[in-house]
Amino acid sequence: MSTESPAVLIVGSVALDSLETPYGAANDTLGGSAVYGSLACSMLAPVRLVGVVGSDYPSEGIELLTSKGVDLEGLEVIEGGETFRWSGRYDGDLGAAETLETHLNVFADFSPKLPGDYANTPYVFLANIQPGLQAQVLEQVASPLLSMCDTMNLWLDTVPDEVEAMIGKVDIALMNDAEAQQLTQESHLIAAAEKTLKLGAKRSIVKKGEHGAFICTDDGCRFIPPYPTTRIIDTTGAGDTFAGGVIGHLASTGDLSDDNLMRAAAVGTVLASFCVEELGVKGLAAATREDLEERYEALEKSSRIPSL
Amino acid sequence: MSTESPAVLIVGSVALDSLETPYGAANDTLGGSAVYGSLACSMLAPVRLVGVVGSDYPSEGIELLTSKGVDLEGLEVIEGGETFRWSGRYDGDLGAAETLETHLNVFADFSPKLPGDYANTPYVFLANIQPGLQAQVLEQVASPLLSMCDTMNLWLDTVPDEVEAMIGKVDIALMNDAEAQQLTQESHLIAAAEKTLKLGAKRSIVKKGEHGAFICTDDGCRFIPPYPTTRIIDTTGAGDTFAGGVIGHLASTGDLSDDNLMRAAAVGTVLASFCVEELGVKGLAAATREDLEERYEALEKSSRIPSL
Repeated sequence: MSTESPAVLIVGSVALDSLETPYGAANDTLGGSAVYGSLACSMLAPVRLVGVVGSDYPSEGIELLTSKGVDLEGLEVIEGGETFRWSGRYDGDLGAAETLETHLNVFADFSPKLPGDYANTPYVFLANIQPGLQAQVLEQVASPLLSMCDTMNLWLDTVPDEVEAMIGKVDIALMNDAEAQQLTQESHLIAAAEKTLKLGAKRSIVKKGEHGAFICTDDGCRFIPPYPTTRIIDTTGAGDTFAGGVIGHLASTGDLSDDNLMRAAAVGTVLASFCVEELGVKGLAAATREDLEERYEALEKSSRIPSL
Repeated sequence: MSTESPAVLIVGSVALDSLETPYGAANDTLGGSAVYGSLACSMLAPVRLVGVVGSDYPSEGIELLTSKGVDLEGLEVIEGGETFRWSGRYDGDLGAAETLETHLNVFADFSPKLPGDYANTPYVFLANIQPGLQAQVLEQVASPLLSMCDTMNLWLDTVPDEVEAMIGKVDIALMNDAEAQQLTQESHLIAAAEKTLKLGAKRSIVKKGEHGAFICTDDGCRFIPPYPTTRIIDTTGAGDTFAGGVIGHLASTGDLSDDNLMRAAAVGTVLASFCVEELGVKGLAAATREDLEERYEALEKSSRIPSL
């Protein structure tokens, strides 16, 4: 972590996940969009986490985040409350999880108030959580240099207008392929990505899991390949990890150009490859800056098309 | 077409296709793996086509191929015979076609004998057709510099051993994602691509349609992004077109290095983008060398990851 880089505020779920995959299962393991995003981002820039947990949240989670330098002043602990819980099941190809249960618990009544100087944080990542909470947080940040939001099919099913409104307020709208198709009613992915720009976001990134990602701006679409790992154990949090890497790289460099967004997406892709190689947060938590640089170079090389 | 470049022998189906797509339909339109492959390849290197048609084959097809300089001495015409027919239907996302009917017709009794000096052709593309016919052709070529085969789920369903045997004899095995998964019983695509190498091919290319392609060798996998066209009308023949571009570029340059295979795959990707933008062979037939070079440069730029 570079302590000199500007900070990134991350709001999102802090969860206990129950996972069923062909390669193993876990009960009430550390998870949540803000946790994956923070672990990834903290490798590149200081993180301020905004979220809420119950008193059942394990000390292991607090210790892990603290060990990565994540500022937890914005993490509320509700005495007697229950932590957000998500359970999901993956089939053989580990593409999209089937959500079995989502219990918002303490997130149902959460009303985030940013502590201390969080309001002056220059980079803001609104990770997947109710769009209403994302909006509450964004409103409290004075003048972000860059804001990015993610979402989930659950909110597109239940509060699509709030998702659209949020996308209209950020610099980068992030979503996965199915969400982009659902949001825009457009089956062609690139056309869907382009349509999300019409909702007001300056740039949109469509995550395609094992197929990489598209980055679209008014100047067209660029393509980020997947990192070619053959070890895919658990894809939970891979999208959040990608996003944490993207905003972490942007914050640590301060360069918001399209070229640097490609670098940021490559950083996110590499961090996501560490994430999917173990169950839960284990692979990501163990990755080092050296691992990141090594895979970045391999990704860069393996996708380079020489001139004709 | 560069007439100085070594020639490419292409065997495969010469067909009349009936297509149903969300954007239009066609009856008995020009199609077939050897036709798409030859039209693409002929933009880069001289083509010698081996195949068979019935006397019902329209003169329009002969004229189109001849206009592109394709040598048709190896195209047998069976008097009173019926041309191979394929019909398929595409859903909204134009991913995989649902095959409605396949009538081998004159291909059922075809026993290719290579005319004249075809046996000395240095580059051989065994496009999708019965693997037995692919084997017959390959056996008649004296000492190919490079051979490449494609296949189709139909042959994996009916004669999987013949497909495997063919893959063991070629330099480059080409297949699409679902075929690689079916052949190797491996759901992870990169792992599937790697397993195809164990069948004996020196390199394998897994085509993923709108998601690009993987090129795998013993040194690892590289990734070719899709060309970001938003106009996708009909994906019939896109894989054959990709393949024709790959072998055409290799033949026209004579450079069989891994780096040049990336260039070849990028050429194939760009030609496939012209193919999908119109119904049948129309888009591909209209593409020029200048169009190819322009899109190649755009693809190269849009997928370039700058160094960290």
